[in-house]
Amino acid sequence: MFEVHLFSKEDYRWLFYFSVLFPRLRTPVPTVRAFVTNQPSHQVAGPVWNLGRLNHVAIAVPDLEKAKEFHKSVLGAQVSEPVSLPEHGVSVVFVNLGNTKVELLHPLGNNSPIAGFLQKNKAGGMHHICIEVDDIHAAVMDLKEKKIRILSEEAKIGAHGKPVVFLHPRDCGGVLIELEQA
Amino acid sequence: MFEVHLFSKEDYRWLFYFSVLFPRLRTPVPTVRAFVTNQPSHQVAGPVWNLGRLNHVAIAVPDLEKAKEFHKSVLGAQVSEPVSLPEHGVSVVFVNLGNTKVELLHPLGNNSPIAGFLQKNKAGGMHHICIEVDDIHAAVMDLKEKKIRILSEEAKIGAHGKPVVFLHPRDCGGVLIELEQA
Repeated sequence: MFEVHLFSKEDYRWLFYFSVLFPRLRTPVPTVRAFVTNQPSHQVAGPVWNLGRLNHVAIAVPDLEKAKEFHKSVLGAQVSEPVSLPEHGVSVVFVNLGNTKVELLHPLGNNSPIAGFLQKNKAGGMHHICIEVDDIHAAVMDLKEKKIRILSEEAKIGAHGKPVVFLHPRDCGGVLIELEQA
Repeated sequence: MFEVHLFSKEDYRWLFYFSVLFPRLRTPVPTVRAFVTNQPSHQVAGPVWNLGRLNHVAIAVPDLEKAKEFHKSVLGAQVSEPVSLPEHGVSVVFVNLGNTKVELLHPLGNNSPIAGFLQKNKAGGMHHICIEVDDIHAAVMDLKEKKIRILSEEAKIGAHGKPVVFLHPRDCGGVLIELEQA
């Protein structure tokens, strides 16, 4: 039926090897595509950085075991065991949704950054969203120029071991936005 | 260097064609994988349904144009023009993050479902998350059995033209969860 031979055996062999070894070159890569399509607006002025994928939605919960059990047994999601991050003042359960994660946060130790939120929202609630960026230092410089308040002077190492910053909710339509180096 | 010939020219030709025509068979498909890995816990008892990917995070905003401009010009995200959905009582701007979407919601007409939320949260804020499911009718039956309150008796057609239900935040750790037929 398809008897047109465009290539020699050698060509087909290398095309096949190539397609197996580098499959992502031929398939949609939303993050990279988003970076590329966003570039022009940033290349005109200011530091060049690009927004990437949604890394996670963080939910503060008053009872970590109960919240984990809800996502696992009621919703049927893949959930991790609780992970203690004392340097960040939280215990975390990661809920894998395939394309991104939900992170269930519970206060750990004194001065937890989510203690105040849970005092105001006793039943728990959505705390922040985390979006990846390709150059967090350029992002910080650019956002400062744009008068967006950042909750720390410089990027700090976040819960995933990568530099992060948090943007002031008042400057982001009421939403606490974390930016994380991709 | 690689002079081992495992296949004939015909074999390589078909392997190459196959890999081009069906690239997704050889690349990670998180949604499908999540469906598969979640199955055992549901196959034991109750209706069979599986949680999929995060479809969107919905943010209620008091000023749609300002919120759109923030995501476009400050964050450099790809944003849509505002879309009026009078039957859902909202105007929406879609923010494409590559792996998922943020949806900026603004009240439209009387009895908008987000009017009350914005009265309590004047600056705006995260309103709900939407997760896809592979069988929404099985999900509704199963969740009712598990005593999760659903905000409508049956699934309704949502803003994307697909059946959706909303789960009561009190039963979901303080978070309003929308489930949408994938």
